Amino acid sequence: MQKPNPSPGELPQRAAAALTLLRERRPRVHCITNAVAQNFTANMLLAAGCTPSMTIAPEEVGAFVASADALLVNLGTFDAERRKAVEIAVATATDNAIPWALDPVLIDRSRPRAQFARGLIDCVPRVMRLNGAEFTVLSGRGDDAEAVADYARGHGCVIARSGETDFVSDGNRHAALANGHPLMAKVTAMGCAGSALIAACLAVEPDAFTAAAAGLLLLGVAGELAAKEAKGPASFAVAIIDALYALNGGALLERARVS
Amino acid sequence: MQKPNPSPGELPQRAAAALTLLRERRPRVHCITNAVAQNFTANMLLAAGCTPSMTIAPEEVGAFVASADALLVNLGTFDAERRKAVEIAVATATDNAIPWALDPVLIDRSRPRAQFARGLIDCVPRVMRLNGAEFTVLSGRGDDAEAVADYARGHGCVIARSGETDFVSDGNRHAALANGHPLMAKVTAMGCAGSALIAACLAVEPDAFTAAAAGLLLLGVAGELAAKEAKGPASFAVAIIDALYALNGGALLERARVS
Amino acid sequence: MQKPNPSPGELPQRAAAALTLLRERRPRVHCITNAVAQNFTANMLLAAGCTPSMTIAPEEVGAFVASADALLVNLGTFDAERRKAVEIAVATATDNAIPWALDPVLIDRSRPRAQFARGLIDCVPRVMRLNGAEFTVLSGRGDDAEAVADYARGHGCVIARSGETDFVSDGNRHAALANGHPLMAKVTAMGCAGSALIAACLAVEPDAFTAAAAGLLLLGVAGELAAKEAKGPASFAVAIIDALYALNGGALLERARVS
Repeated sequence: MQKPNPSPGELPQRAAAALTLLRERRPRVHCITNAVAQNFTANMLLAAGCTPSMTIAPEEVGAFVASADALLVNLGTFDAERRKAVEIAVATATDNAIPWALDPVLIDRSRPRAQFARGLIDCVPRVMRLNGAEFTVLSGRGDDAEAVADYARGHGCVIARSGETDFVSDGNRHAALANGHPLMAKVTAMGCAGSALIAACLAVEPDAFTAAAAGLLLLGVAGELAAKEAKGPASFAVAIIDALYALNGGALLERARVS
Repeated sequence: MQKPNPSPGELPQRAAAALTLLRERRPRVHCITNAVAQNFTANMLLAAGCTPSMTIAPEEVGAFVASADALLVNLGTFDAERRKAVEIAVATATDNAIPWALDPVLIDRSRPRAQFARGLIDCVPRVMRLNGAEFTVLSGRGDDAEAVADYARGHGCVIARSGETDFVSDGNRHAALANGHPLMAKVTAMGCAGSALIAACLAVEPDAFTAAAAGLLLLGVAGELAAKEAKGPASFAVAIIDALYALNGGALLERARVS
Repeated sequence: MQKPNPSPGELPQRAAAALTLLRERRPRVHCITNAVAQNFTANMLLAAGCTPSMTIAPEEVGAFVASADALLVNLGTFDAERRKAVEIAVATATDNAIPWALDPVLIDRSRPRAQFARGLIDCVPRVMRLNGAEFTVLSGRGDDAEAVADYARGHGCVIARSGETDFVSDGNRHAALANGHPLMAKVTAMGCAGSALIAACLAVEPDAFTAAAAGLLLLGVAGELAAKEAKGPASFAVAIIDALYALNGGALLERARVS
């Protein structure tokens, strides 16, 4: 049997390589994201080396996406203008072969949002990051590894399911990522930031499975380093951006817990 | 004459009990709040133990409110979509007996906003938190204790008037809260955060007068603790979230200044 | 030949005077700014001594502007409601002789936005702050001192072009400002904050050239002081607000690098 490429053991090295490329190439990442997450997401992307943009105006979102290196679509604010912007952005990304990631925030609390997310999955994002409750709504199954792998295979899309242990699968390759810190659940938009870092990695890493794992590794390791400095969730939110900005491949390789 | 229940002296103990319940039950608090306040409010609510949500889309706000334990309506951003969302949210809260709090931000600067606020007060929020200038616009009187008590009695709504000393009244019971710190006036959305914490307390404390006092006590005591760490308003904004996250009943009882 | 008034060497003293006035008068600064920048901008303005407001609702933005001391128009979020708000706000400012500043964010990435910005420049903002790439789109020339001066003269508007060295010109008077720190480029909305501080200074300093230089000096010197405290971009963003809040004329005079 052929060994998957990269194997889980090789992912930290690949994440370190992606981080280096982010800083060398400074890719443009366009984000259609929710109002709560915009500032934190932009600062996270800047800390990773990217140039973020955030417009949602239908008149111009196409031009922003067309000149970007990757796209994030986050459904956390679901107003009419953003929905229109998402449709234009995804069509533009598809036409221009620009990789995009989907974050179907809180679809477990809103049927119209879940319905909208299903339509987007049919447009085939390279990666979808979501939590277990959100995954269950989409898949109609549990959020275990087998269900995630089946869904990924069926939809031709890498799934990155967050949780105490993150699980990433493209249907054939799988990785469990055990980095992170409990304070990450106490800061709003932390999951959104993870999705944004996945989009960032898609800009520099052609393999979507590797990019998804790399994005979550960057966040998880930065979170562990931040926890050493933090006195609570708000100083943690500051420290994780500082830690991501200072992160280097050595720390990433040393701390990564991938299996 | 009967002693009011709770008496002002009992409020700190009741606030401590509410804090314990917030952490045990992790209530869902839906917030329709302004764009400036959303991130800070969400992080404050997370620090208090709640699960915040923030959508304003008319298609889904009803479902979010129906599955929430309390609702905050903050008028600080007054766009057409938010106004529609507020109407749906308040109707849903009323139908489902979900308690809600109103924060009529800056109605002293905008007649249409004041008019909209008056319509909402007729829907009877459990608590309205506002500052003296905002109260004066609504009541057509000064913002002294008697005017506040009269207004509360007349409208069947607890009034929490912020200021150097906060004053809470349901028309029959009154409390003056002297906690807090001057830096709180130097951070945007601090009042909005107070209203959000009142909404949070409404989710676990059936008596709206007690919930209003408890929410403001949590904020005021956290502010005092934060001031010890802060070098200015931005480090204060970080420290108050950290302090709220670490707050326990002991510190609350020790520091509360209620009369 | 007459020496310009103020000469570059006098600008730090004038900036210190403006800072004193901001704290004495606490001017109201209304901001139509982008969703990413709103919270940071409001906290920066509070730290400088101002009272910020941020509404974009067409029904009320006119009243907010009419009762403000200065207006900021930032095009970073370009939705239909904000465009309408901008038109009302600029007309109100013009009718009431309220000074306003324009920040044409990212017009180098969006033609409709550049077109909208051109229409606004015809309404003659007192100051336009922008970076070199944005200036080049408007002027069709490079972003050197001569091009900036020509544009300022031709449009009757002070131009504050940000960069490693900021350059301010009204066509006849020029100043180069060398304060600041590289971390300022790693925090989202830092340029927006600079424009907001220029608007703040317009509220207390009638000479727009002086106000533009003063606003950028406040930001640049606060940035230098913040860098001493910062461990990365997020702690820098906290520290620059704290530093602005603590800034005094002495530090400003000592550190200002104007030529």
